[in-house]
Amino acid sequence: MDQLFNPKSVVVIGVSENPNNLARVIAENLFEFQFHGEILLIGQKEGTLLGRGICTSMEDLREGIDVAVILTPAQTVPGILESCGRKKIRWAIIESGGFSEYSEEGAKLEKEVLRIAKKWGIRIVGPNGIGIINIENGFVAAFPPLNRKAVRKGKVSLLVQSGGVSLTYLNLLSSASVGISKIVSMGNKLDLNEIDYLKYFIHDPQTEIIGIYLESIQRGRDLLEMARSTSKPIILHKANTGETSKEIAKLHTAALANDDKIVETALKQADIIRVRDFRSFINAVKVLSLPPMRGNDLVILSRSGGIAIVAADSAERYGFRLFPMKKSFTDRIHSYFRAKVIRPTNPLDLGDLFDFDLYTKILEHVLRINAVDGIIFQHAAVGGEVQPSRKLIHKAKELSLLYQKPVAFCYLTEEEELAYIKRTFDYPIFIEPEDALSALAISREHYRKRKILREKPPSYSVNRSHVKRLIHKAKKEKRDPILPEAFEVLQAYGIPVADYQVVHRKEDLEKTMNKIKGPVALKVISPEISHKSDVGGVVLNIRDLSEAERVYSEMNKLGKRNFSGVLVQKMISDGKEVILGAKRDPYFGPVVLFGLGGIYVEVFKESSLRVAPINRPEAEEMISELKTASILKGVRGERPLDIKALVENLLRLSQLMMDLPEIEGIDINPVKVLEKGAVAVDARILLSIGHGV
Amino acid sequence: MDQLFNPKSVVVIGVSENPNNLARVIAENLFEFQFHGEILLIGQKEGTLLGRGICTSMEDLREGIDVAVILTPAQTVPGILESCGRKKIRWAIIESGGFSEYSEEGAKLEKEVLRIAKKWGIRIVGPNGIGIINIENGFVAAFPPLNRKAVRKGKVSLLVQSGGVSLTYLNLLSSASVGISKIVSMGNKLDLNEIDYLKYFIHDPQTEIIGIYLESIQRGRDLLEMARSTSKPIILHKANTGETSKEIAKLHTAALANDDKIVETALKQADIIRVRDFRSFINAVKVLSLPPMRGNDLVILSRSGGIAIVAADSAERYGFRLFPMKKSFTDRIHSYFRAKVIRPTNPLDLGDLFDFDLYTKILEHVLRINAVDGIIFQHAAVGGEVQPSRKLIHKAKELSLLYQKPVAFCYLTEEEELAYIKRTFDYPIFIEPEDALSALAISREHYRKRKILREKPPSYSVNRSHVKRLIHKAKKEKRDPILPEAFEVLQAYGIPVADYQVVHRKEDLEKTMNKIKGPVALKVISPEISHKSDVGGVVLNIRDLSEAERVYSEMNKLGKRNFSGVLVQKMISDGKEVILGAKRDPYFGPVVLFGLGGIYVEVFKESSLRVAPINRPEAEEMISELKTASILKGVRGERPLDIKALVENLLRLSQLMMDLPEIEGIDINPVKVLEKGAVAVDARILLSIGHGV
Repeated sequence: MDQLFNPKSVVVIGVSENPNNLARVIAENLFEFQFHGEILLIGQKEGTLLGRGICTSMEDLREGIDVAVILTPAQTVPGILESCGRKKIRWAIIESGGFSEYSEEGAKLEKEVLRIAKKWGIRIVGPNGIGIINIENGFVAAFPPLNRKAVRKGKVSLLVQSGGVSLTYLNLLSSASVGISKIVSMGNKLDLNEIDYLKYFIHDPQTEIIGIYLESIQRGRDLLEMARSTSKPIILHKANTGETSKEIAKLHTAALANDDKIVETALKQADIIRVRDFRSFINAVKVLSLPPMRGNDLVILSRSGGIAIVAADSAERYGFRLFPMKKSFTDRIHSYFRAKVIRPTNPLDLGDLFDFDLYTKILEHVLRINAVDGIIFQHAAVGGEVQPSRKLIHKAKELSLLYQKPVAFCYLTEEEELAYIKRTFDYPIFIEPEDALSALAISREHYRKRKILREKPPSYSVNRSHVKRLIHKAKKEKRDPILPEAFEVLQAYGIPVADYQVVHRKEDLEKTMNKIKGPVALKVISPEISHKSDVGGVVLNIRDLSEAERVYSEMNKLGKRNFSGVLVQKMISDGKEVILGAKRDPYFGPVVLFGLGGIYVEVFKESSLRVAPINRPEAEEMISELKTASILKGVRGERPLDIKALVENLLRLSQLMMDLPEIEGIDINPVKVLEKGAVAVDARILLSIGHGV
Repeated sequence: MDQLFNPKSVVVIGVSENPNNLARVIAENLFEFQFHGEILLIGQKEGTLLGRGICTSMEDLREGIDVAVILTPAQTVPGILESCGRKKIRWAIIESGGFSEYSEEGAKLEKEVLRIAKKWGIRIVGPNGIGIINIENGFVAAFPPLNRKAVRKGKVSLLVQSGGVSLTYLNLLSSASVGISKIVSMGNKLDLNEIDYLKYFIHDPQTEIIGIYLESIQRGRDLLEMARSTSKPIILHKANTGETSKEIAKLHTAALANDDKIVETALKQADIIRVRDFRSFINAVKVLSLPPMRGNDLVILSRSGGIAIVAADSAERYGFRLFPMKKSFTDRIHSYFRAKVIRPTNPLDLGDLFDFDLYTKILEHVLRINAVDGIIFQHAAVGGEVQPSRKLIHKAKELSLLYQKPVAFCYLTEEEELAYIKRTFDYPIFIEPEDALSALAISREHYRKRKILREKPPSYSVNRSHVKRLIHKAKKEKRDPILPEAFEVLQAYGIPVADYQVVHRKEDLEKTMNKIKGPVALKVISPEISHKSDVGGVVLNIRDLSEAERVYSEMNKLGKRNFSGVLVQKMISDGKEVILGAKRDPYFGPVVLFGLGGIYVEVFKESSLRVAPINRPEAEEMISELKTASILKGVRGERPLDIKALVENLLRLSQLMMDLPEIEGIDINPVKVLEKGAVAVDARILLSIGHGV
C-alpha cells in the first residue's frame, strides 16, 4: 500500500481547462503541495493545464503508472477502470459520487466497478470520497482546493469516511499545533476499508497518532484486534449514533447503523479512544502528543486565582486529586528564588509573582515531585507579556519532555497571538481548563487501560465433546436445546445450576421429591414449547407430592406427543435475582450481558455488556459499573452476596460463547446470587437456526 | 450608580513614573480607551505621566471629583479613604489586595475601610479586583494593560468576582462577535455586591445580556428576585463547586462555598442560565443574541453530509426533533431554482449545489415553514469560496432577524478567516455543531422557562393563628413541636395525616382502638424524646388491646416525668413510602425536598429540591425528575398512585415554610402515597432554637 500513499507517477482522469472542473483541482493541489512524482492528465477535450497537456485517450498512456485518480460521472467509471486495468495500473482512487449512496442503479454500477477491479487486480479507494492526502510528500489528490500555507505537516494520520469531515479535521489539526501526516477519505469503502488503511498506518513510521471518523463499523472484531496489536494511540469519532442520523448516513456514505452500546463498550475494551465531537477529538490528539498521565495526582499552577478555581472544579469533575502541596515545598521556593511568600496551596496561585523565569523554576520544582503525575499550567498574558510568554511555552514543552509528565498549557490571550502560537509551536496549547482536564482524563484512562489490556482472559478446561454432542443433536432436530440440555451445557462450562432432576415417569416423582427436599419447581420438557412460562409450563413452589403429581399430569397434556417428562428443581428463596446473557453482534461477534432482575431492571433498565472474550477486570467492571448492583453488596443491614461467583460465571459464559459459534444467544434468567455462590435457575439457548436473538 | 460607571472626573491614586507601577497602567488604559472625562493623578512622588502632573497631596484636589481609583498598599487605604471623604468623593474603586483574602490583619483593615466609607457616605468597589471597565465611554479603570483594538464594544455587561476571569471574558467576548458593554470586577465585595451592580445593569439601556461570574452567592434570594424582575437574559458562571476549590476560593476572594445542589435548582427556577465553563458561557451569549428557539423543531442545512450526521447526533442528544421535510418542499425548491434534485431529508445535504445564492434561497424557504423553530446552517469553505461565504453570513443574519428564528451558523474554514469573521461581523459564528446545538438547547430552555415563571404559586387559606399558637408554645418551652403538635401544623396547612387519636389515660385505649380499627401504631408523646424510634418510642402493627396496653405501660416508663400520653395511629399497609422535607438555606432561604423512601433512597440516593415558594409545574417537576419516582406510576402491573395528591402536599409545604420563618426544618417521613391520596405517617418539625437541620 506504500505505492498508493507514495506513488512515483499518477494519472488524474476527468480534468479539463474549465475553471469549474473538479478533477482540475486535484491536479492543482498536487502542484500546490509540490508533489515530486510524475503527473499525467486525462480529459475529454485536449488542452493545457499548469503547463501540462491534457491527453484524451487512455490508450496513449504508458503502462505501469502507480495510481489513477478518477473523478468523472459514475456511469463512465467502469469503462475507465477497464482501461486502467489494461494499462497495469494497480491503484485507483475513485472520487466520483452517484453510486450506492445515491440509487439502486448506482449500487449496480458499484458492483460492476468491483468486478472489473477484481479482474485486473486493481485496489480501489472510494468511491464517493475525496481520496488521499499525504502531506509528507505532497501527494494531495483531493478535489476541494487546498492552501499549502494553511496546512501543517505533523504526526496524525486520519482515516475518514466523509470528505467534508476530512477537511474539517485538516483545518482543526493544522491549527492545533499537532499537524497531519496522511488522510484517506474512504467514501463508500467499496474495496479497501478501514482495516486495510489502519494496518498501513500502524506500520507507517511517519504516523504517530491515528484518528478515525466512521459512520458505520463493519469489521468491528478486526478493528479491535488491530487496535490491540499496536501501541500507537487510536482515536475514533464514531458518528451516526442516533435514530435521526441513520437515514442521512445511509444516503451519505451508504453506512448502516451499529448498536451504539456495543460500539461504546467494544472500543473501550480495545483502548480505542472514542470521541463524540470535533473538539474532543482535537483535545485527545493534543494530549496524546504529550507524555502520558500515569496517575491521578495533579498540580494546577495558575496566574489567575479565579481561573484556578474554575480549573479545580473541572479537576474534581474528572476525578483528579489535587496533590497536597507541603509547606516545606513553598518554603524552599521562597528561599531559592527570594520570591514573596506564596501560599502552599494547590492550585498554586502565581498571580503576585510577575516573573516569568520564576514561573519556569516553580514548574520544574513541581515536576520533580515524584508523586505528581501531571500539571495544568494556566497562563494569561496581556500587552508586553506576549513575548516572554512565548519563551515560557518553549520551556514548558522542554520540561514536560524532560520529566516525561504532561504539562497541559492553557493560554488565554488575544486571538491573533493565539493563532500565531498554534500555527508555529510544536506543542499543544489548550484554551480553557475544561479542555485541558478532559484531555488529561483521556490520557489517564488510556494509560490505565493499556495495563488492563495486558491481562489475558482465563481458560477453563471443559468437556467440549459432550457439549458439541448436545448441540449437534438439537441442531439435527432443527430445534434449540431444551431443558435439561441447556443446563448441561452451562454445567459443562462450570456455571452452577440450582439442584434438579429429570423425571420421565410420574411414579418417579416421589423419589425425586424426597431427594431434593423443600419446595420445588416443575418445568415441562418438550421441544415444542420454547416459552415455557407463558403457557403454564413452569409451576413454582410445589410443596408436596400430590400437588407435584397433579402438575405432572397437566404438563403431560400440555406437552402432547412431544412430552418427555418434567424437570424438578429446588426452589431457591434466598439471594437476589440477576440476569446473565450473551448474543452475537453482526459486527463485533459474541457479547456477554449482565443486569439485575426483577423490579430493578424494570424501573432502571440498567445492563452492562462486553465483547467476549473478557478478562477478570472486565467481568468485575461489568458488575461494578451498574448502580443497581450496589444492592448485591448488602443494603439495609443485609449481608453481602457472592459477587466473586458471579464474576466467575461471566468469565465462563464468555468462554462458552467463544468456543461455540453455533450458539446465537443465551439467556440465563434468573441467576440467583447467594451469600455463597451464584446459581442458574432457568436458561434458554438459541442456535443460529431460526430464532435469532 | 450611573456616576460610578460614567464619571465626569476621576482621580487615580497610587501612580508613579516607574514603568512597573500598576496604578500607572490604570491611567494609561484611560488614555488608550479615550476616556473623555477629567483625569487626575496622585502619587508619592511628583512627576509627569502622559502629559499630566502627578500630585502628591490629596489636600490639593478640588472637591467633588466623581470617582477615586485606589491602588496602593492595603495599610494606606484607610487614610486615603479619609482624604477622599473630606474631598466629597462618593465612589471609590479599591483595586489593592491584601485584605480579608490575605490575612486576619487584612480582614481588620477591611472593616476599618468600611467604617470610614460609611462615615463619609462613600460606596466602594472591591477591594482586590481590577475595578470597572466601561467600553462605551472609555472609562477603563483596570490595572492590567489593555489594547483597545483587541476589545470589541457590544451588548454584554459582566459582573465578575475575579480579575483574571474578567480579562478572560473580555478576550473571549471580543472574539465572539458579541462584544462587551461594561465589566465590574467585584473582588471581595466589601460594600457593593452583585445585587447592587445587577440592579444597575438591569436598568442600563446599553446592556442587553448580563453575564455573572461568582465564587460565592451570599444574597441568593435577592439574586432570584432580581432575575425574575427583568426580561434581560442572565448567564451565571458559578465556580467553586467542589471540595478542592473551596480552600483556594477562600484565599482568592474570601468566598465561602454554597450548597451546589441548591444553587443549581435556584438558578434554574429563576431562569438564570447556569454554565460551568468559559465555552458554555460564550455559547450562551451567542445564542441569546439571536432570536429565541421557541420549540423543538429543527432543520439542519449542511454543505457536508458527514458533518450533517455529526450534527444530527448532537441534535438528538439535546432532545431536538429533526423536522420532517416533505417531498413537496424539495419539489418546490427544484422547480423554483432549477437546482438538481435534492433529497427531502433533514439534515438537508447541500453538498452537490455549489451555488451560494441558492443556499440563501433554501434557507429562506425553510425559515418560512411555520413549524420550524430554528435552523443549524453548517457551512464550510475553502479557497475562493471565502468571499461569497461572507455574503452568505450577512444574508443568514438578515433572514434570522426577519423571521425571528435562530439561524445558528457553524463555519469551518481556515483559522485566519474565522478570526476575521469573528472580529468584524455582528453575528455569532459557531465552530462545530456540538456548540451550536448546546446553545440552541439553552435558548429553548430559556424560552420555556420564561413561560413557566409566569405561573404564580397557589395560595391556600390557613388558620394561621392556631399554628402560631402551637409554635409559640413549643418555643416558649424551648423545645421543638412534638406529636401531635407537628401533625396539627401539617393539618392546618391541609397536608393529610394518617388517622390518629391522642390517648392520655390507659383506660381510653379501648375506645380509641375500636374507633380507629385495624392494626395501629403507638407513638410516645414526650417533649424530651426527639428521636422516638431510636429509643423504642414507636411500636408498629399493634393488633389488639392487650398488646396496646402493654406497650402503653412501657412508653409511660420511657417518657418518665414528661410522659403525656401516646398517639394511636392507623397503620397504612398500602402505597409506597416517600419523604417530604424542607429546610432553610442560609443564602437562598426556604427549600422544599422530595425523595422516595426505603431501599430506593438507600441505593439510589435520589432527591429533588426547589427554593420555596414553588408553583404547580415546579412541584410536578420535583417528582418527575426522579428516576425512582417512576415506581409511583405503577410498575409490574401495579396501579398508578396519586401523584396529584403528592404535588398538592408539596405546594402546601412550600407555603408553610414561607409563612412560618420560625420553622428551621421539617421532615415528613414517611408519607404514604396511595391510589387515592397521600398521607403523612410521621413528622418532625425543628424550630430555629437549638437543633438546626
